[in-house]
Amino acid sequence: MTAPGAGASGEDALIARYFRPLATDAGAFGLVDDAAILKASGDDLVVKTDAIVEGVHFLPDDPPDTIARKALRVNLSDLASKGATPCGFLLTLALRKADDAWLAPFARGLGEDAAHYGCPLLGGDTVSTPGPLMISIAAFGRVPSGSMVHRFGAQPGDRVVVTGTIGDASLGLDILKGGAAAAALADNPAARDLLVGRYRVPQPRNALAQAIRDHASASMDVSDGLAGDLAKLCAASGLSAVIDAPGIPLSAPAASLLARGIVGIGTLVSAGDDYEILCAIPENRFEAFAQAARAAGVAVTPIGTVIAGKAAPRFLDAQGSEVPLPRLSYSHF
Amino acid sequence: MTAPGAGASGEDALIARYFRPLATDAGAFGLVDDAAILKASGDDLVVKTDAIVEGVHFLPDDPPDTIARKALRVNLSDLASKGATPCGFLLTLALRKADDAWLAPFARGLGEDAAHYGCPLLGGDTVSTPGPLMISIAAFGRVPSGSMVHRFGAQPGDRVVVTGTIGDASLGLDILKGGAAAAALADNPAARDLLVGRYRVPQPRNALAQAIRDHASASMDVSDGLAGDLAKLCAASGLSAVIDAPGIPLSAPAASLLARGIVGIGTLVSAGDDYEILCAIPENRFEAFAQAARAAGVAVTPIGTVIAGKAAPRFLDAQGSEVPLPRLSYSHF
Repeated sequence: MTAPGAGASGEDALIARYFRPLATDAGAFGLVDDAAILKASGDDLVVKTDAIVEGVHFLPDDPPDTIARKALRVNLSDLASKGATPCGFLLTLALRKADDAWLAPFARGLGEDAAHYGCPLLGGDTVSTPGPLMISIAAFGRVPSGSMVHRFGAQPGDRVVVTGTIGDASLGLDILKGGAAAAALADNPAARDLLVGRYRVPQPRNALAQAIRDHASASMDVSDGLAGDLAKLCAASGLSAVIDAPGIPLSAPAASLLARGIVGIGTLVSAGDDYEILCAIPENRFEAFAQAARAAGVAVTPIGTVIAGKAAPRFLDAQGSEVPLPRLSYSHF
Repeated sequence: MTAPGAGASGEDALIARYFRPLATDAGAFGLVDDAAILKASGDDLVVKTDAIVEGVHFLPDDPPDTIARKALRVNLSDLASKGATPCGFLLTLALRKADDAWLAPFARGLGEDAAHYGCPLLGGDTVSTPGPLMISIAAFGRVPSGSMVHRFGAQPGDRVVVTGTIGDASLGLDILKGGAAAAALADNPAARDLLVGRYRVPQPRNALAQAIRDHASASMDVSDGLAGDLAKLCAASGLSAVIDAPGIPLSAPAASLLARGIVGIGTLVSAGDDYEILCAIPENRFEAFAQAARAAGVAVTPIGTVIAGKAAPRFLDAQGSEVPLPRLSYSHF
């Protein structure tokens, strides 16, 4: 992704018009070089890539600005869960055609988020494809050397904590597809909008990064379903967990759909696209963590406890019976 | 891209089988974490992303191991041209299905190249797509702080130098498509193989990175055609250039096809996929640069001179007449 000089092509012009304004970091060289620089510092660099594909991670008629925001935010969410502060990203954009009506709002949404999260565009590649749109982002963050928070490292007795609310995005997708949630909320556009917004525009918890770094023994983001992602965190730590299912934080619309029997808790904890943080906090750290989270403006909820054992985490209902799970998490294959 | 624990999915198993063995760097955490680390060092980090798409950058029936090598090497080539030493990469792999017969050689080729070039897999994302295969790689290299070689910085009087040979890859693609070069080389399978190999498996000039850093005033890799890429280098430096077209290094098969009139020099210098380095070397540095290149085992050829002016570089034939160029370079849009 380089901006045009003599011999400028359509591709170059596209990049200059839409993406050069996003390359605000000195290390991006205004996209007139072949690569960018992240300057030497005493920090470790945390690197992550996640891609989103039309028809898989977003719908063809989703607004372009929300597609851009989702592409960046799914990566920012990973950085947040590792305790890292974003410092830039590379963009790969596979397009069927260069369509100004799509590119203008896409670049605007991407630029607004890049500015808001302090994560400037460093470079990229724009390619043509006859297939679905695809946006792949590689995002970079910094942590003080040796302080990245891992998926492993939880200890028995640690509290299991999640940010925000769980399951909303899957209900938003169900609404966009005209599923049961759409019918059940036919007379409640505000609830529909909230859930659809949660599907289209994740809310990465980057404000919580330092609190995670200061207090969490293990952390990851919830992107493929709480149950499956918790199973991964536990397996990485060689442990298990027990979760109080009624204590899982739900939005008002999700709680209402659950109470009406439109959706089960097992479905909500197995669905993807939450982009919340799941972490283990030692008991004696929990108050300090909760206080830091309040200061950061991020809701955190303890939902259970890490325990010894190798079994998959159990989700218990109000009667202490195990909640059956339809599937643990989303898999592409 | 994370390897499986409890709740392992098909995607996780695929990653563990094929890609975990490539994650040889400690900072990749065996792909059991959500992100990787590039450790703090005194070096600047050079970051670059390039994607290749089935039907655009490679053909559907290209061998999977060559597709993998090309995906990595197009990025290694950029790092080399910036004077950077590779240190790792992130992989985004968009697949229609998880096909062992394709994935096994793909991962083998990728792993061999990662080992050969000292550029281990740090992480990635595997997604399903109904469309063409796409491989996007973000590659990282290190340079001593402040020493990345830019596309800009050339000075009037600098020699214009290219590595290797120009135009082979476009002839290789023409052969694979059954074009004029295929017919002209019908009785010369060795020449056909050489040209096809140049299309499928670029030869990035990473061995030359330090010589570039030590001696080049400006540098980039030739990926979209020599003429257009030289125009970009000149424009970035606010200069022009004059090129001795008969001095452009050609492989024996390309030279033969040129002599027979099967292809013109204008086409060879406007075609993509060379992945050679194009750089400007101050006259008083040229001997030292050439010696370092010999020591590195990389052929370098002076083809012209940087001059003042803003016009597009001119390519002159043996009579001093300007060679007409059909187009400057490849553009996706």
